[in-house]
Amino acid sequence: MTETVQISLQDAFSLLTQVFERSGASKGVATSVAHALVAAESEGQIGHGFSRVADYAAQLQSGKINPNADMVLTRPAPAGLHVLADYGFAYPAIEAALAAGLPLAREMGIAVMTIGNSHHCGALAIHVEKIAQAGLVGLMVANTPKAIAPWGAKDPVFGTNPIAFATPVKDAPPLVIDLSLSVVARGKVMAAKKAGKPIPTGWALDAQGQPTTDPEAALEGTMLPIGDAKGTTLALMIEVLASALTGSAFSAEAGSFFHADGPRPNVGQTIIAIDPGSRSDFGARVKTLLDQIAAMPGARLPGARRRAAIARSESDGLQVPAHLFHQVQKLANPDAQT
Amino acid sequence: MTETVQISLQDAFSLLTQVFERSGASKGVATSVAHALVAAESEGQIGHGFSRVADYAAQLQSGKINPNADMVLTRPAPAGLHVLADYGFAYPAIEAALAAGLPLAREMGIAVMTIGNSHHCGALAIHVEKIAQAGLVGLMVANTPKAIAPWGAKDPVFGTNPIAFATPVKDAPPLVIDLSLSVVARGKVMAAKKAGKPIPTGWALDAQGQPTTDPEAALEGTMLPIGDAKGTTLALMIEVLASALTGSAFSAEAGSFFHADGPRPNVGQTIIAIDPGSRSDFGARVKTLLDQIAAMPGARLPGARRRAAIARSESDGLQVPAHLFHQVQKLANPDAQT
Repeated sequence: MTETVQISLQDAFSLLTQVFERSGASKGVATSVAHALVAAESEGQIGHGFSRVADYAAQLQSGKINPNADMVLTRPAPAGLHVLADYGFAYPAIEAALAAGLPLAREMGIAVMTIGNSHHCGALAIHVEKIAQAGLVGLMVANTPKAIAPWGAKDPVFGTNPIAFATPVKDAPPLVIDLSLSVVARGKVMAAKKAGKPIPTGWALDAQGQPTTDPEAALEGTMLPIGDAKGTTLALMIEVLASALTGSAFSAEAGSFFHADGPRPNVGQTIIAIDPGSRSDFGARVKTLLDQIAAMPGARLPGARRRAAIARSESDGLQVPAHLFHQVQKLANPDAQT
Repeated sequence: MTETVQISLQDAFSLLTQVFERSGASKGVATSVAHALVAAESEGQIGHGFSRVADYAAQLQSGKINPNADMVLTRPAPAGLHVLADYGFAYPAIEAALAAGLPLAREMGIAVMTIGNSHHCGALAIHVEKIAQAGLVGLMVANTPKAIAPWGAKDPVFGTNPIAFATPVKDAPPLVIDLSLSVVARGKVMAAKKAGKPIPTGWALDAQGQPTTDPEAALEGTMLPIGDAKGTTLALMIEVLASALTGSAFSAEAGSFFHADGPRPNVGQTIIAIDPGSRSDFGARVKTLLDQIAAMPGARLPGARRRAAIARSESDGLQVPAHLFHQVQKLANPDAQT
């Protein structure tokens, strides 16, 4: 049993904002990053929440994350926006893209937002959910540091390259989908390593391309994709959309999202928002489909666990592992007595 | 060894055009459908080629495919097009969407084309390849009659719901990706049934939701998705994009693509084209990525087998199973001596 500390969403948000301001971020950037990490933690995506704070702070201090990033938004085409994140955090760049891109999608019927020279964008669910809350259909892809080998090869080329989707649903919260193309998230292997536990076969291969149950060997090898060759094919598709189309590094070139030193990640994100407005029954049709699935014995709708976690976090606050909480508290108030 | 008949692409095209005209299609529609089926056969997608001709002809004759479809193209938003296929063939509707949509994508930076009240769209590769040949990045999804159950449930709700992608590559043919979300195409199970052979476990479940190696039981049950729950989640995403967004039937409501009778399929297709034009190094970056993968021992680039099949078909013509060829020949010339 891990010892945990209970903290309200508001207190968590204030604490994290303080950490990032102290580490060199502007008030606005610190706010944006703190908001995203607390949202990820609150929805149960603990690999994208408190566990990232110390690494983000260290990268800000070393300059691996540019604390003075001069983010620039341009409109290279009537229905296209590009945000140059200038090696700063991804979160404010994505916020800027959505702030301009959602009205644009409503005006044009569809808009594409590319974000280049970016960093870790955390739980994609948080970003696409905002698109659906605005009444639009959202699609988002991102590339991430190399983790998956092309099918048949043994060296990683693709990231776990997540894809996310969200759609409005009539008289209900949006449907939010967010998945990576590896069988499991790399964070699960890291968690197994920390816990000193083996991983199931089918999650990863070692550096020689052989199946392994050793999390350490897995982290030096590659993650297995969903659907074998089909998964690596989808990872290639996302690689083109998130790196070449955004002017960012390929996953194989990207620096780590962890550690204070080493090359910058320089990854990219591509977001597409579509206005279903011309189809008046759209939200109702999606509701019909989801209701039909929910009524089937054994079936579970994507996002159900996520929404339950958010509701729990909103009423009871976050349960953060004590060692993480104290680490973050120390970063917020380095001079305080402990 | 199946007996085959060799036929040139041009002769195959003329033969199929004749079949569809005789079955009630206009010259233009017959041409469009024949072109798509020959292209699919020539790239080795035999489940979308000659094997479909008799079923298409029977559906035209029964009116299940509307021979007098009054296709209507509208522009509900500046960067959005909608084609109402009016229960006719999908191919001319997709052609019309691309003819108007590709210039629109070039003008706006991105365009979305939705095709509603449609039919079987065959090999998606053929459609998205045209987008990449026009210098744009293409994405396409389609829903198909029900075949995959929501994860944990036993009744099918989703089609095998294919997704396709194509991108220009500098100094090389486009990269074309086309995959369905089932572990294998349903056509492979049908082929095993015809051949009287068992199927591997992991392809399908029977009507009770149990693993099966019996192709007949599999056809009455459900196809297994890639990546377990992740695959059904992607199928749900495609369902929303291809059915609700296009104003078409859900996969669970769609009539069969086979048989002359029964309800019309009424499925939908959604196509997105993105202009990478503002990023001058785009094609070169994609080339770098593909070259890097191609140089890895054991790796194979998606589409390599497809391009080899096309080259072979262009030089040697098609090798069509004799029984299929004679069936089609008979449909083209019902009165000829055999």
